[in-house]
Amino acid sequence: MKNTPTIILVRPQMGENIGATARAMANCGMKDLSLVAPRDGWPDERATTMAAGAFEHMNEVRIFETVTEAVSDCQKVYATTARRRDLVKPVFIPDQVMEDIVNRPEESTAILFGAERTGLTNEELSMSDALMTIPLNSDFSSLNLAQAVLVVAYEWSKQSINAPQINLDYGDSIPVSKDKLHEFLERLDEELENGHFFRNPDMKPAMVNNIHAMFTRAQLSDQEVRTLHGMVSALIRKKAKKEAK
Amino acid sequence: MKNTPTIILVRPQMGENIGATARAMANCGMKDLSLVAPRDGWPDERATTMAAGAFEHMNEVRIFETVTEAVSDCQKVYATTARRRDLVKPVFIPDQVMEDIVNRPEESTAILFGAERTGLTNEELSMSDALMTIPLNSDFSSLNLAQAVLVVAYEWSKQSINAPQINLDYGDSIPVSKDKLHEFLERLDEELENGHFFRNPDMKPAMVNNIHAMFTRAQLSDQEVRTLHGMVSALIRKKAKKEAK
Repeated sequence: MKNTPTIILVRPQMGENIGATARAMANCGMKDLSLVAPRDGWPDERATTMAAGAFEHMNEVRIFETVTEAVSDCQKVYATTARRRDLVKPVFIPDQVMEDIVNRPEESTAILFGAERTGLTNEELSMSDALMTIPLNSDFSSLNLAQAVLVVAYEWSKQSINAPQINLDYGDSIPVSKDKLHEFLERLDEELENGHFFRNPDMKPAMVNNIHAMFTRAQLSDQEVRTLHGMVSALIRKKAKKEAK
Repeated sequence: MKNTPTIILVRPQMGENIGATARAMANCGMKDLSLVAPRDGWPDERATTMAAGAFEHMNEVRIFETVTEAVSDCQKVYATTARRRDLVKPVFIPDQVMEDIVNRPEESTAILFGAERTGLTNEELSMSDALMTIPLNSDFSSLNLAQAVLVVAYEWSKQSINAPQINLDYGDSIPVSKDKLHEFLERLDEELENGHFFRNPDMKPAMVNNIHAMFTRAQLSDQEVRTLHGMVSALIRKKAKKEAK
């Protein structure tokens, strides 16, 4: 299997949890771990100790400042969350996610895990393609970060062992990379601002999240994002011309 | 599911591992834990601390001197082992075991886990009906006792707890009706035409189809379509005002 998903820990607090995550990943043959703004920096001695040699079985850990940077070379991003959110997004359980990943070997995928207590922000969830939740006893759910990764990594190992080698034909287009999608969304936000779309400044962050969620959910292709750029250009065209006068 | 398997820890050494096992079980809705000859006796304060309340969600822990006594009221016993043995026995992976258990609701089943380092004796394995092994990366396998129980308990929970379907959580909103979606798409087409988006008339039908496909694929909510109307209005705003003069 060429394409194994990248696990991204967002703002992890405890080095021990990073090490235990690496162990869970290496146990299941996963190799790519990224960290976004680890609280205690990197490298972290406690992570190394807890990893018990796991890092030697993996690719080098990559460190980023923001989630946006961490997912820039990905085509599909799943966000792990235990809580119900107001965002309209598909919700999958881990084995469904892994089946999806295994069936799309050409796509580069990442799975986000939030910080130990606080999880992921609504903004981070809105920029993800889908949510993943681990179904647990609703009366008692206390999985820690590394245990959640273990469940997900184990599902990965099961699927990848049995994975058929499939090459999908994407035609002339490919799923858009996150950096190109983000570039479009930033432009859209800006043009909407120019058009006084965000009348209430307090509401703007939620509105932006909802708009980003819509376009992320559509799983756009490279070509479609170019089309959307053209659509925005067309919609603002006369306005720009008149302003130029 | 009437018949949930009993987890039996055989000669567990560390109270912490017993507590963590209880947590993994309670997370996944399993209720029956038995201990065979726990090294430090029972109750164990470190187990209680590590369990973080898990025991309150379970039936009372049962204590036995021997495996034979512990399995006396069971009809089927699986023995967990990481190692190859000389015994000729069927070997299953956890999801196969759980499928088997679910398909035999009248049978009372137990799953044995050996001590932290030494595992189960050959005698204990020979008394079991089948072996269960957790498939891991053969170059790096370091699951501890409670993590192994977690993987098994999670497989159980997938069978017994209603997993969320693949569906969207629309919050307060509802999926948009097709007439409202089409109304929006017609308006969008018209505004794009006004902005000279469709430069090549021969290409227009295909472009319109692609645009409609994008927005249909996003499975928009009622509220989101209202938002999209507002976005189009914002993008064309100045243009419309200037034309009205």
